[in-house]
Amino acid sequence: MSNMNRQWRLTGRPVGEDFDSVMEFGEEPIKSPGDGEFLVKNLHLSLDPANRAWMNEGDTYKAAVPLGGVMEGFAVGVVEESKNSGFAVGDTVSGMGHWEDYSVTNGQGWAKSPDLGKQTFDAHLGVYAIVGPTAYFGLLDICDPQPGETVVVTTAAGAVGSLVGQIAKIKGCNVIGITGTDEKCNWITEELGFNAAINYKTEDVPAALAKLCPNGIDCHFEQVGDADILDAVLTLMNEKGRISLCGWISAYNMTEFPAGPRGLLNLIVKSIKMEGFVVLNFFDQMERCYADLAKWLDDGRLKYRVDMVDDLADAVDALHTLYSGANQGKLIVKVQDDPALN
Amino acid sequence: MSNMNRQWRLTGRPVGEDFDSVMEFGEEPIKSPGDGEFLVKNLHLSLDPANRAWMNEGDTYKAAVPLGGVMEGFAVGVVEESKNSGFAVGDTVSGMGHWEDYSVTNGQGWAKSPDLGKQTFDAHLGVYAIVGPTAYFGLLDICDPQPGETVVVTTAAGAVGSLVGQIAKIKGCNVIGITGTDEKCNWITEELGFNAAINYKTEDVPAALAKLCPNGIDCHFEQVGDADILDAVLTLMNEKGRISLCGWISAYNMTEFPAGPRGLLNLIVKSIKMEGFVVLNFFDQMERCYADLAKWLDDGRLKYRVDMVDDLADAVDALHTLYSGANQGKLIVKVQDDPALN
Repeated sequence: MSNMNRQWRLTGRPVGEDFDSVMEFGEEPIKSPGDGEFLVKNLHLSLDPANRAWMNEGDTYKAAVPLGGVMEGFAVGVVEESKNSGFAVGDTVSGMGHWEDYSVTNGQGWAKSPDLGKQTFDAHLGVYAIVGPTAYFGLLDICDPQPGETVVVTTAAGAVGSLVGQIAKIKGCNVIGITGTDEKCNWITEELGFNAAINYKTEDVPAALAKLCPNGIDCHFEQVGDADILDAVLTLMNEKGRISLCGWISAYNMTEFPAGPRGLLNLIVKSIKMEGFVVLNFFDQMERCYADLAKWLDDGRLKYRVDMVDDLADAVDALHTLYSGANQGKLIVKVQDDPALN
Repeated sequence: MSNMNRQWRLTGRPVGEDFDSVMEFGEEPIKSPGDGEFLVKNLHLSLDPANRAWMNEGDTYKAAVPLGGVMEGFAVGVVEESKNSGFAVGDTVSGMGHWEDYSVTNGQGWAKSPDLGKQTFDAHLGVYAIVGPTAYFGLLDICDPQPGETVVVTTAAGAVGSLVGQIAKIKGCNVIGITGTDEKCNWITEELGFNAAINYKTEDVPAALAKLCPNGIDCHFEQVGDADILDAVLTLMNEKGRISLCGWISAYNMTEFPAGPRGLLNLIVKSIKMEGFVVLNFFDQMERCYADLAKWLDDGRLKYRVDMVDDLADAVDALHTLYSGANQGKLIVKVQDDPALN
């Protein structure tokens, strides 16, 4: 192994989507772990819409990335050196890491990765870490969808949305996905089994939803925060409907947030619950989630696709694709190869 | 008793707050109950912000008032004639009735009123019917406030808000009320024991809230739907905060709904639940509510005040005061006297 560690550092607070100018690529020698610490060789790095929010000054559900610090992100890697009794050399681990080749950590926010069984290594970030549990808990624990109910999902061909829709299908629901290209519409209906898809760039979403949801909407999984689409959903929601708020990608690059939906009164008229969550809330309940995801992956009912970026140097460019919708599947940066892993 | 029945009928769908032009006051002979029906002599009629919403074309959580039909409202009265085995002559009953002296009903939506104990007759609409259960279930079942938590209430001097704040105090919370006159601010702090009050007409609400809630806001009880005030609350909400949506009075007279709050992203960042409800959802759980309300009324921990309108002919004029905030306390129309009741 080279003794240098490539890193992306955050040098300023970005305005809008111009985070390129405040991200600096460099390298420094790999550090050694101290007592209680271990060294992770990062293999896959997850790029997620929320990354942009962590670049801002204010803390969110996690502390902001400090100025001058290495950019943070969810990562999967292998332990190369360990002075921490909880983690052994060779363990595959995942956690809140950094945009770099090697990370030293005391283990806080890290955990051993679940056994992949028959699945390939990209299943770690394609399903198990972050996106799978996000879809699982955000849909099942917040919406509790029942057989025969209608479920609507935004960014339905995205890493989380595609899993949400498939889990809703497994639960016996009628599932409508909203996404941004005809290719994505085809993928979620033909490959993933969604009942229908709406291309929000070419179709009239309120009219399409009304047509596709003749019995109204019972559950909605929101990742965009577009006021007009939310209003269309709110208008069609049934009594005791449940809305799970997972993301608000429309606002992450805004300097001033746009106005919200006009129809929140519908929440009262129909006794609707709208609840936000972050997956961290559910870290004490991962076992049942992993068990279900593994079962569904192995019996072919849960599919995923990965958009792999082959060089850490391209991570900043790649992050933009999440906001334009150009990525197809879970966006992952291959930080380093490991010949021992597939 | 006169054999004529004074009535307010809805003759059209109002635009904005101009419901005067579509409400017609007239009279017709009192009807007799048929098999399974009974005749109620209406004594007190409740005027509520939601009345305006029922005048619109579309159904809400209840069917719209039909054109040409007698206007609907919650009422308390005494059974004068009965061909329904569930209700006897002399029973005090309350239910979804009509703006008229006498109503014939099959009993659907009506129930026997709870025993008032030491309380005066105006406690029926001042506390037990609708407003008390609305405050009770909307605060306790949706927000579940814990001792030491901070609770914010809008229209805090209103019939529901004043009870919400007092129940939150009984539960050991720090309670901040937002209302529209200094008199109301004084009443809720000095008479009702709220910790603090904000006059939204003369104060900077976001600044005042930030100052009065140094530990953030845990629970919010919303009745107005003002986007700026909601945003101020959202900004201050703590992790796992709970927002109970009870009313949206700002929109009831609007022809087009105003834009919503910009800060719904906070619902995700802080894992906040925002839930709408109507009190009808809780009708199967009234017993525990009535028992608690009676206990708190009798031991002096729950106070209410009533703004009594003495003539059914003035009901339409009086309804306007709910939207201007001119009423002081629960707005009730005394439809008829009953010398046997205090």
